[in-house]
Amino acid sequence: MAKDMTLFWGSGSPPCWRVMIALEEKNLQGYNSKLLSFEKGEHKSKEVMEVNPRGQLPAFKDGKVIINESYGICMYLEDKYKNQGNKLIPECPDERAMMYQRMFEGLTLFQKLAQSLFYTRYVPENERHDSALERNTKELKDEIGRWEGYLKGNFLAGEHFTMADVIVYPVIAFLFRFGLCEEKYPKLAAYNNTLKERPSIKASWPPTWKEGPGMDTLKNL
Amino acid sequence: MAKDMTLFWGSGSPPCWRVMIALEEKNLQGYNSKLLSFEKGEHKSKEVMEVNPRGQLPAFKDGKVIINESYGICMYLEDKYKNQGNKLIPECPDERAMMYQRMFEGLTLFQKLAQSLFYTRYVPENERHDSALERNTKELKDEIGRWEGYLKGNFLAGEHFTMADVIVYPVIAFLFRFGLCEEKYPKLAAYNNTLKERPSIKASWPPTWKEGPGMDTLKNL
Repeated sequence: MAKDMTLFWGSGSPPCWRVMIALEEKNLQGYNSKLLSFEKGEHKSKEVMEVNPRGQLPAFKDGKVIINESYGICMYLEDKYKNQGNKLIPECPDERAMMYQRMFEGLTLFQKLAQSLFYTRYVPENERHDSALERNTKELKDEIGRWEGYLKGNFLAGEHFTMADVIVYPVIAFLFRFGLCEEKYPKLAAYNNTLKERPSIKASWPPTWKEGPGMDTLKNL
Repeated sequence: MAKDMTLFWGSGSPPCWRVMIALEEKNLQGYNSKLLSFEKGEHKSKEVMEVNPRGQLPAFKDGKVIINESYGICMYLEDKYKNQGNKLIPECPDERAMMYQRMFEGLTLFQKLAQSLFYTRYVPENERHDSALERNTKELKDEIGRWEGYLKGNFLAGEHFTMADVIVYPVIAFLFRFGLCEEKYPKLAAYNNTLKERPSIKASWPPTWKEGPGMDTLKNL
């Protein structure tokens, strides 16, 4: 039951957002939603550390069950509420294979995004190199090109909305929020613009993104 | 059917090894096993690139289905052969939550291992800093400490062997292969020594590890 669930989350974080999309898709509205600020360091607060000793968001409780890994939470919700809301894992083994392939490749997409966009956040000033940032950015560009090529149907794993979309959509939305050029990546842009209108995604849209425009960091990618 | 499956793999690679353990657990012996050499660059060969355009191992085919992400292959095999071999995903939602939690935290363990042990492989010489390697190694030590604390039962997710063990065991075995001290991490050592004897793990033990001793890189961790 949603009222036994508590989610600590931060606005715009793809790992948090995917959990919120999964909760919407499984008709689990009404959970205890605790929006915290990364900027204020609230992800290191006592109430988060008690649930997630890593001091990271998301942190999630369902009654006595604690699970904090975002991929894990999504899978757990789908398993536990198999017959509630939308079915996120296809029955057909071939479609399922494609879903798993894309959802786990999503880890690489997010890693490439982070090592380019958050380079100065993660690398201390005296260890930074232009050559490293250039290489990381080139790797991100190549990775995005791969995903542009993947989109043949309407969704990441084919013609149906699946767990791959729940998990990877927030990363793709993040790229466009940081200025990815719609003309250069028309399939990803169409995907992004279609999914934006999906009820689960509209309902969970990052509140800080509604307050103003994004950045143009990736505009030349 | 195992005879329709082809696995391209490299010896000692945790992502390859977990797939081999899953195949053994699901009684899928008899698949086409293609051992390749990373040192000779065989993971970039045409036959691999045709299956996995990233040029990475594992690369896996089941008839016409292609799936290369190691977590995905393990999940796909468990789903498709639910009633064959050992059940790797518990029925109970609480146990399942713990299994997902540990299996996805395993990504962090492997990432911390890689950024310390493979620092010079991934970072070009002119971008290396002692401070970075020290920090990465400290993070690996902290991460291993976390896992030492996790082990309460016999297995990573409690009292039963689950997908969390299939996926994370090869990373833990890798740490000991690189000299992790058994006395400092007694629970991980006991886990490693027990699992070593499990038939699926014995049958898939890395052939290069049988040829000689490991390294002592991590002996002071």
